[in-house]
Amino acid sequence: MAAQTVATTTNSVDLGPAAALSCRECGHRVPLGPVFACEECFGPLEIAYDYSAYDTEELRKRIEAGPANIWRYAPLLPVPADVAEKPNINPGWTKLVKADNLARELGVTGGLYVKDDSGNPTHSFKDRVVAQALEAARAFGFTTLSCSSTGNLAGAVGAAAARAGFRSCVFIPHDLEQGKVVMAAVYGGELVGIQGNYDDVNRFCSELIGDPAGEGWGFVNVNLRPYYAEGSKTLAYEICEQLGWKLPDQLVVPIASGSQLTKIDKGLQELIKLGLVEDKPYKIFGAQAEGCSPVSVAYKAGQDVVRPQKPDTIAKSLAIGNPADGPYVLDIARRTGGAVEDVNDEQIVDAIKLLARTEGIFAETAGGVTVGVTRKLIENGLLDPALTTVVLNTGDGLKTLDAVASDTGLTATIRPNLDSFREAGLAS
Amino acid sequence: MAAQTVATTTNSVDLGPAAALSCRECGHRVPLGPVFACEECFGPLEIAYDYSAYDTEELRKRIEAGPANIWRYAPLLPVPADVAEKPNINPGWTKLVKADNLARELGVTGGLYVKDDSGNPTHSFKDRVVAQALEAARAFGFTTLSCSSTGNLAGAVGAAAARAGFRSCVFIPHDLEQGKVVMAAVYGGELVGIQGNYDDVNRFCSELIGDPAGEGWGFVNVNLRPYYAEGSKTLAYEICEQLGWKLPDQLVVPIASGSQLTKIDKGLQELIKLGLVEDKPYKIFGAQAEGCSPVSVAYKAGQDVVRPQKPDTIAKSLAIGNPADGPYVLDIARRTGGAVEDVNDEQIVDAIKLLARTEGIFAETAGGVTVGVTRKLIENGLLDPALTTVVLNTGDGLKTLDAVASDTGLTATIRPNLDSFREAGLAS
Repeated sequence: MAAQTVATTTNSVDLGPAAALSCRECGHRVPLGPVFACEECFGPLEIAYDYSAYDTEELRKRIEAGPANIWRYAPLLPVPADVAEKPNINPGWTKLVKADNLARELGVTGGLYVKDDSGNPTHSFKDRVVAQALEAARAFGFTTLSCSSTGNLAGAVGAAAARAGFRSCVFIPHDLEQGKVVMAAVYGGELVGIQGNYDDVNRFCSELIGDPAGEGWGFVNVNLRPYYAEGSKTLAYEICEQLGWKLPDQLVVPIASGSQLTKIDKGLQELIKLGLVEDKPYKIFGAQAEGCSPVSVAYKAGQDVVRPQKPDTIAKSLAIGNPADGPYVLDIARRTGGAVEDVNDEQIVDAIKLLARTEGIFAETAGGVTVGVTRKLIENGLLDPALTTVVLNTGDGLKTLDAVASDTGLTATIRPNLDSFREAGLAS
Repeated sequence: MAAQTVATTTNSVDLGPAAALSCRECGHRVPLGPVFACEECFGPLEIAYDYSAYDTEELRKRIEAGPANIWRYAPLLPVPADVAEKPNINPGWTKLVKADNLARELGVTGGLYVKDDSGNPTHSFKDRVVAQALEAARAFGFTTLSCSSTGNLAGAVGAAAARAGFRSCVFIPHDLEQGKVVMAAVYGGELVGIQGNYDDVNRFCSELIGDPAGEGWGFVNVNLRPYYAEGSKTLAYEICEQLGWKLPDQLVVPIASGSQLTKIDKGLQELIKLGLVEDKPYKIFGAQAEGCSPVSVAYKAGQDVVRPQKPDTIAKSLAIGNPADGPYVLDIARRTGGAVEDVNDEQIVDAIKLLARTEGIFAETAGGVTVGVTRKLIENGLLDPALTTVVLNTGDGLKTLDAVASDTGLTATIRPNLDSFREAGLAS
C-alpha cells in the first residue's frame, strides 16, 4: 500500500495553508498526499499548517465576510482559497441554539447551547468531513469517492460525489434495512452490498485500497482520512464565532472513533494561537452509549489503554468498538478537566424526547447520547451547571425513527365530535 | 365563530408593520385579530402593511445585518421588531443552490437554482409559516397551538410549540402510518387520533374553533391563517437577496392550497414597490401532481373556476383536492406569463432521482413535482431555458422514503474479495 500511495504523493497540490502531513506520534513529516499512516512508526498522520502569514483582525474580518458554510474558514483548512467556487455540498454554519428550556430542566444556569448539525445538507455532521475529503480527492486527481458505511456516511458521500461530478461507490453489508439502502442509493452512485458483516466490508475496503483495482479511488475515511478528519475542526470554529468569538467553558461531544472530539480540541487550540479567541480554560467531555463504551470504561478505570468492545446499542452511528482515537480522547478529557461518561439505551431515548419536548429539536440517537450524558454529568457533579456549556447534536431523528417508535405515539384517540373531545379531557 | 373571534380582535397588538386585515375580494378592512374570513363577503383576509416609513437603502442594510433566518425580514412581516429575541424555531435563509449539473441535463443555459427548504428545522417550508403563526398566537394571547395534518405541518407545529413553551395539540386520522405518528409525537405535545378520515379531522377542527372548548387555541392554518400565510413571502425575499437583490426571470412553485405561490408573488411585488429590486417581468409557474391537479386542469381548459378533485398521488403534501387559492394562482400564472403544469407519479419519482443524482439534494415528493414540471415545461416550450430559473424544493426525501423505495436499491452484491469485485465490473 505504501508504494502505491507514495507514488502519487506530491507537494505541488494547492491545499491552501496545509503545509505537510505530520505524524501525531513521532512528528515525522511527509509531503501532502493520500497517505494516512506514518512510514516510520505507523502512527496516524495529520495536517500541519502554515498560519504564519495571518494578521488576526484581518483574518477575523475575512472569515466574517465569508459564505454561510464551512468555507468561511477556508484560510484554516486544507483547501484551496477558491474552494467556495467549486461544486461541493457546502455544509456547516448550522444553528447554535440557546436552549433555555432544556437548561431549566437540567438546572444549567450558566447558559446552555445545542450545536445542531441536523441542519447540514444530508442532516449529519458527516457532511463536514466528507466535504473536506472531496476537496482532497479533487486535489489528488481521484475520480471516485468511496467509503464503507451503514448510515450517515453513505448519504454524505453519495450526495457530495453527485454534486461534484465524481463517481461514488459505497460498500455496505448486503442485508441492511431497506430504508437505509434507499437513503444511500438515491444519489445514483454505486451502492455495493457485501456478503458479510460490517467487519468484512471494512476488511475488503482495505484490500481494495492496496490493489490496482482501486486506483484513483479516494476512500474518505481511509486514504483521505487526514483531510477528512479536519472537517470536525469547523464545529469548534463555528461554536466560538457564534458565541461572539469566545471559548465555551464546557463542551459535550459524542465519541465514535474519537476523531471528532480530538479535532474539536485542535480547532479550539488553533483559535487561541491565532488570537481569534481569548485564551482561557475549557473542559471537553466525551459521551458514549453504555452498549459501546470502551473509552468511558477506560476513563473511569484510570487507564490509558482502550480495550475493544463488541457494540450493542441503539446509537449505531457511535458504535465503534475499537475507537482509533480513544487514547487521544482520554488525554484531552484529562488535560482539560473534562470526563468521559456513558448512558444506556433507555436514557438515550429519554434524552431524545427531552430535547424534542424542550427545544423542538429531533435528534438522532447520537444526540440522545450527548444530552443524556450531560444530564448524568450534572447529576454526578462532573459538569458545572454554572458554566457556559455546548452540547453537540450530530445527526437527525428522522434517520433513527425506530429508536423512539415504541415509546412515542398518540396521546388520545377520539370520535370526530366535541363530546368525545371533552370526555378525553382535552378542552382548554 | 365570528362573535368569538371579534371579541379578541384588537389593534393594540404589536405586529410590527402589519396595519390591518384586508379582504382580498372586497377590500374591507378590520383590525388585526384572529379572524380569517371577511365579515362582509366571506372572502379571505390578508395582512395590509404600512411600509411608508422605510428608506430603501437603510432597509436593505438592516436586512443584510439581520440574523441568518426569516427574522432578517422582520420589517416586512407581521411580527414585532424584537421577534428574533423570542423563542421560536427560526427557519429560513436556506440554501439557494446553483444547480449546474441539473441545468445541463435539462438544457437550461440561463442559470438554474434550487431553493432548498429541506434545510429548515423540521425539514420543510412549513417551518416558515408556522413560525409566523406562532408570533401571531403570542400577540393574541393564545396558549395552545393546533392544526390538522397528516405530515409536515404536524412536525412544524409540534417543534415550534415545544420551543416557545406553548401547549400543542395536533389532530390526525387515527390510522396514520407509525413513522408519521412518531415524527409528529416526538415533540411531546398532544397528538390526537380522530376516528375518521382527513376530511372528518378538518370538520372536527372547524367545530372546535367555534366552541368554548377551543378558546385560547390558535389553529395555525385556520384562525391564524392570514399571519401563517405571510411566512411564504420570505421565500421570495430570500431568493431575490441570494441572487444579489435581483428578481429571477422564472420561478417554479408547487401548488397545494395555492397560498405559497400567491404569497411568493406578493413578496416579489413588495420588493419592487420598496425599491429593493429593480422592476422587471418575471413568470411564475405552478406545479401539481397529475393525481391532484385541479389548478392545472383549470389552467389548461382556460377556466377561472377550479373544480375539486379526489386526490390520488404519491405527492401527499400537495394533495389538496379543493385548493382555496386556486383562482388566485390562475390569475398570477396568466398575468405573469407563466403556466400551470402537472406530472404523474412515475415522473415525480424520476425527478426526485434526477435531482439527487445531479445535485446531491434528496427532495420530498413535492420537490419531485417541481423538478418534473420544470422538465416538462421546457419540453413543451413554456419555460425558456435561456432565462434565470428558480425551482422550489419544499420538503425532505427522508419523510417520503416509500416513494422511491421500490425503485432504488443495491447496484451489485458481491462476496468480500477482489475477484468478486472485478467480476462485477466495478474496478476503475
